[in-house]
Amino acid sequence: MKLYCLLLMISLIFFPALPQAQHPITFFTKAEAAQVRNSIAKYPVSLSSFNELKKEVDTWINKDVDVPLPKDPAGGYTHEKHKANYMLMFNSGILYNLTGDGKYAALVKQLFLKYAKLNPTLPKHPEAVGSLAGHLFWQALNDANWLVYAGMAYDLIYNSLSPEERKTITDGAFKPEVDYLTKEVGNNWFNWIHNHGVWACAGVGIIGIATGNKDYVDMALYGSNKDGKGGLMAQMDGLFSPDGYYTEGPYYVRYAILPYYLFANALKNARPDLKVFQYRERILQKALLSGLQLTNLDGAFYPVNDALKEKDYTSNELITAVDVAWDVYGKDEGLLVVANKQNRILLNKGGISIAATIATTKNIPAYYPYEAVEYVDGVKGDEGGISVLRNGKGKNLTALIYKYTSHGLSHGHFDKLNINLYDKGNEILTDYGAVRFISIEQKFGGRYLPENKSYAAQTIAHNTLVVDEESHFNGNEGESGKHHSEKLFSSIDDPNVQVVAAQERNAYKDVQLERTVYLLQLPDGKKIVIDLFNATASKQTQFDLPFQYSGQLINTSFKYQPATKTQETLGKKNGYQFLWKEAEASVKDTIAQFTFLNNRTFYTISSLIEDSASLFFTRIGANDPNFNLRHEPAYIIRKKGEKEFFLNVIEIHGSFDPVSENASSSYSSINDIKLLENDEYTIAEITINKKKITIAKSNKIFDKNTKHTRKGISWIGPYTVLYDGKILK
Amino acid sequence: MKLYCLLLMISLIFFPALPQAQHPITFFTKAEAAQVRNSIAKYPVSLSSFNELKKEVDTWINKDVDVPLPKDPAGGYTHEKHKANYMLMFNSGILYNLTGDGKYAALVKQLFLKYAKLNPTLPKHPEAVGSLAGHLFWQALNDANWLVYAGMAYDLIYNSLSPEERKTITDGAFKPEVDYLTKEVGNNWFNWIHNHGVWACAGVGIIGIATGNKDYVDMALYGSNKDGKGGLMAQMDGLFSPDGYYTEGPYYVRYAILPYYLFANALKNARPDLKVFQYRERILQKALLSGLQLTNLDGAFYPVNDALKEKDYTSNELITAVDVAWDVYGKDEGLLVVANKQNRILLNKGGISIAATIATTKNIPAYYPYEAVEYVDGVKGDEGGISVLRNGKGKNLTALIYKYTSHGLSHGHFDKLNINLYDKGNEILTDYGAVRFISIEQKFGGRYLPENKSYAAQTIAHNTLVVDEESHFNGNEGESGKHHSEKLFSSIDDPNVQVVAAQERNAYKDVQLERTVYLLQLPDGKKIVIDLFNATASKQTQFDLPFQYSGQLINTSFKYQPATKTQETLGKKNGYQFLWKEAEASVKDTIAQFTFLNNRTFYTISSLIEDSASLFFTRIGANDPNFNLRHEPAYIIRKKGEKEFFLNVIEIHGSFDPVSENASSSYSSINDIKLLENDEYTIAEITINKKKITIAKSNKIFDKNTKHTRKGISWIGPYTVLYDGKILK
Repeated sequence: MKLYCLLLMISLIFFPALPQAQHPITFFTKAEAAQVRNSIAKYPVSLSSFNELKKEVDTWINKDVDVPLPKDPAGGYTHEKHKANYMLMFNSGILYNLTGDGKYAALVKQLFLKYAKLNPTLPKHPEAVGSLAGHLFWQALNDANWLVYAGMAYDLIYNSLSPEERKTITDGAFKPEVDYLTKEVGNNWFNWIHNHGVWACAGVGIIGIATGNKDYVDMALYGSNKDGKGGLMAQMDGLFSPDGYYTEGPYYVRYAILPYYLFANALKNARPDLKVFQYRERILQKALLSGLQLTNLDGAFYPVNDALKEKDYTSNELITAVDVAWDVYGKDEGLLVVANKQNRILLNKGGISIAATIATTKNIPAYYPYEAVEYVDGVKGDEGGISVLRNGKGKNLTALIYKYTSHGLSHGHFDKLNINLYDKGNEILTDYGAVRFISIEQKFGGRYLPENKSYAAQTIAHNTLVVDEESHFNGNEGESGKHHSEKLFSSIDDPNVQVVAAQERNAYKDVQLERTVYLLQLPDGKKIVIDLFNATASKQTQFDLPFQYSGQLINTSFKYQPATKTQETLGKKNGYQFLWKEAEASVKDTIAQFTFLNNRTFYTISSLIEDSASLFFTRIGANDPNFNLRHEPAYIIRKKGEKEFFLNVIEIHGSFDPVSENASSSYSSINDIKLLENDEYTIAEITINKKKITIAKSNKIFDKNTKHTRKGISWIGPYTVLYDGKILK
Repeated sequence: MKLYCLLLMISLIFFPALPQAQHPITFFTKAEAAQVRNSIAKYPVSLSSFNELKKEVDTWINKDVDVPLPKDPAGGYTHEKHKANYMLMFNSGILYNLTGDGKYAALVKQLFLKYAKLNPTLPKHPEAVGSLAGHLFWQALNDANWLVYAGMAYDLIYNSLSPEERKTITDGAFKPEVDYLTKEVGNNWFNWIHNHGVWACAGVGIIGIATGNKDYVDMALYGSNKDGKGGLMAQMDGLFSPDGYYTEGPYYVRYAILPYYLFANALKNARPDLKVFQYRERILQKALLSGLQLTNLDGAFYPVNDALKEKDYTSNELITAVDVAWDVYGKDEGLLVVANKQNRILLNKGGISIAATIATTKNIPAYYPYEAVEYVDGVKGDEGGISVLRNGKGKNLTALIYKYTSHGLSHGHFDKLNINLYDKGNEILTDYGAVRFISIEQKFGGRYLPENKSYAAQTIAHNTLVVDEESHFNGNEGESGKHHSEKLFSSIDDPNVQVVAAQERNAYKDVQLERTVYLLQLPDGKKIVIDLFNATASKQTQFDLPFQYSGQLINTSFKYQPATKTQETLGKKNGYQFLWKEAEASVKDTIAQFTFLNNRTFYTISSLIEDSASLFFTRIGANDPNFNLRHEPAYIIRKKGEKEFFLNVIEIHGSFDPVSENASSSYSSINDIKLLENDEYTIAEITINKKKITIAKSNKIFDKNTKHTRKGISWIGPYTVLYDGKILK
């Protein structure tokens, strides 16, 4: 990282800061615009994208567009209006270049002159919360959004403005905002290595390029003190692992990728010497592709950390990134799939090229080319990571996500060693996501709701172990931010046998957690997940392993006491206070089976219960006076002791078709589960359809070449899986 | 009805019973089969349908197919096997005719010979419940299903059988079943005017045609006593209104239409003199088309009475009916839309013709041509009815269903004057449907669950008035079956102003219920429902008006007390025992507003509260030890008095896009609601976006030509709606 920065600091000295003013240059160049103009009508998607843009903008031509005094939180009128205005200016600026019609430039100018009057007068936004206030919006972040698009809009109509108008806009609309964001927002916000900081530098940088202000561009590249501790280069270094995994998770890379790509795109024209798209071995390409691999079949980003689960890769941010990436990194089948689903392009060179490819490609695949993937976390790649075990073609994809990352900054959840299961595009073992109704004013102005921290971020809201009803790191972000889990070993190359083992030693004092998950496909096609969770404490401890599931309970192998007449909460704090206890059971020396139906497939969790355990059926909804939460169920296995072992088999089985009225294999095929050893080695036998799966793994030596022999089984490397006496592969 | 029967009895005497044995004749004729054979490969849908069928059947060729001793309930092995077997025999029979390959006939024969051995030995099914036991299946109904398909299968391979084989099958496989169904099943089952009876006569009739047994055919046409009190003709007379509305509702017409159409199709060839498809002014065509009009945008049948909400018009029954109807009634754009969604055809003349039309038609519409419709109920059309108010094109359709029918036989719900609202294909004000996991053995063998009667059929599970926490007719089917509601007036011709008024005088002793619903579209495009519910009792009474809604609560205009730490049920019986009370409020002299989000649209219920009311937020889930119910919410308005009036405005407003992060118009636009009069006339003013809607209607004179003048408003006919001082239209 340091070396990259140094080289760039040097390049800064030897190269001219900005080429001679030539406009436009931020979004596209004159030559690129001409090429786009000539191609729009040739392809359905470019034509519809252009027509849509034109229709939106044309409704405002010759109208007096409101630039209101900022007043409302997100979702409110003034917030939404300023948001709409920056997109309107940008889009109208594009149309000016593509049509040559002065009315589009006039519309943008009209708005800019209003902002030039308004912006110098603005105090902190009245709805601001905390230290990161904006001027035009309740948070500085949104002001940075405004700068990104307003900067491009200005550049796009630059040639239509008189020198006086340029000065008026530069001094009135931009300078107060840039000064505020770079100097005044508290806590060194501008240089914060975080998606906010990415937006901030992109906004200031694009304004800098558009107005020919070297100072702005330098701050945008190297931080407000130009020392490399902030700015684009530090953001490219500091937020991604070498694999391109973005530490906040895929939902937020979706958000950050837009300013990265737009600023990099502007720099490509204005500062080609920087080779930003090649920086750190194409880190921006890796960021995009890893973000896309971390989506579900429907394109929704996996809900790692704070995430709104509806958000998918058809969002504006991804249209931008995909269209730019297509141009700078070249054609890519995955991007084509995504662009085809987006069904809208950016009117630039990459967008047109995609539109042409869509028009001429027969049979664009229905799904992104998903693979089993693993990404390391941390700038150096040494802070744990995330694995996605995948099996199945097309719609029939099964994905098991195993998270053993670092905390993920301010949006991180307390869910070390969490798993989520997706099957056929459906969420099976779920993550709540974030508690937020984005942009709905009634719900706290569209901001994160209090239940986001008090429920969704807590450990019990996930599918990982909770000790003594406390969250990992006691729910302390600062503490969690200092640690990360560690992968012990993994193998994702054989689709029939995928395995990842990881451990967590810091989430609880004197408690060691170790989880190994397998995604297996048996020779008959059946898919199962085997989940081994070892918890070792130094004293008597309560361990809760929740399975948040999506579906309707079909049956259980055990008797339980349902709470039929009154309901109480499962606990009092750390997220437990939100859970109604719907039923509970005490079980002993058994295989406890819990079958549910999701959509048209059955799923059974078969749990080995040695000695005894309590089982709880819960549902979210208690202590939620504002009805902010969805009422989702969970199945929780509770064991007490010093050292406890959870062995669960999650089985995907059968089918249900309510239209043709057929159900098949609605019962589990698991006949038995036996634990033969769980010390230096873990060895277990699972009998399924009367055939035996044997899991054997070393718990101490994870070397790939070491030979092990135990209980009459010999194998090389940390693990082996036998099926019916033969190595499964 | 009587006249029809008489004419047919006469025709029976003068025409030969059955034409000379020519096979096949039930499913298609030899000539038709030849035509199908020559066309299959020409069209994508016929080819894929044929290949699919062939693939299914081919897996069983040269296999010893199991014909097990009946043992299991629905969902269990023997049930599913016999079900699969009759379809396999039928499909293999079709393939024999289309390919000429004897292996297909051999497969069917193999099975028939096993059934010929098994059937004579069968006692009542061990899983039978009540008096309507079957032999092969737990209920006689499923045995009738078997006869329908087995009868066609026999006919299809008739020519491949030796006379001895024919006799073996006729005597062994068929006779015991026919004898049992026509003579032994209790309660005069075979002649029951009900979907069971339709299946029974179709099964016996098709066997009769296939085996040349006039006695069977006569029983199938005129009942087991051949007196016209049962059989196909009585079923066509007795279950439909003159409009074709099927008294059990659209979910069950979907089920009954298959035997109607298959038997009628066989009779078209075997007894063309009967002109069954023309019978009762084409009642079978009306049945199909009215059934299709009673579906949602996604093709799912509206949940009137017992209904599984996943069931849609792509089901096998509708493929059969649509393909036969296309042939006998001619081309129809609506049927084409449905067939296109079905993406599968029956391999008969109609199916091939549809496949050809699909192949050559560009731009088949995405949705069935839905219209505002009204259907009367009752054989004579004088037993109330059902109205579907509709507004909007394509995906933007809004549908308000208002039910004022008779009870609907054994599957009827106690929901007089119930409404349901659909918008953009989503359920907004919902009906629970039925409590049943069809064909899932763990859930009571796939049968209706106890909660179907104890919850789903009860009044509180709907969107209509409950008096003193008792269901309509005290939940007594016999009593409810004697009565029906009455429409007072309606108008559905103007899409901007649709209105229906109906009354119910028998559901409760000494209580009169009258509900008038409007679906309005205002000049600015906004859609609202106005719901006026007058309840008049002779003594102090508690009235509950529930709104089962689908969505997330966004905000309310009033304060409420949420049940945050413990939860109790709303009541103890008649469905109330299943409702957790999540919150309650006391309100007085106000407009109470309740806003929720469904998918990407906001909905607000604005309620005029004169004097006082209690409001409850409930959720299903209490007293459900087996987790058979979905945990859905409701909003309930409770008023107490002798005469109470509920005036609710249900407003469709705004939009929410979580991908682009935009919310618009998330607040209600209702400013005020005033009731000016509610006696001889009801006159109310609703102020919306600062403009006034005036509702004026007579409560006594419903004549279309009478002129009324009240409160300075003059109008002709029972009602008028003014907007901003002008008549809305």
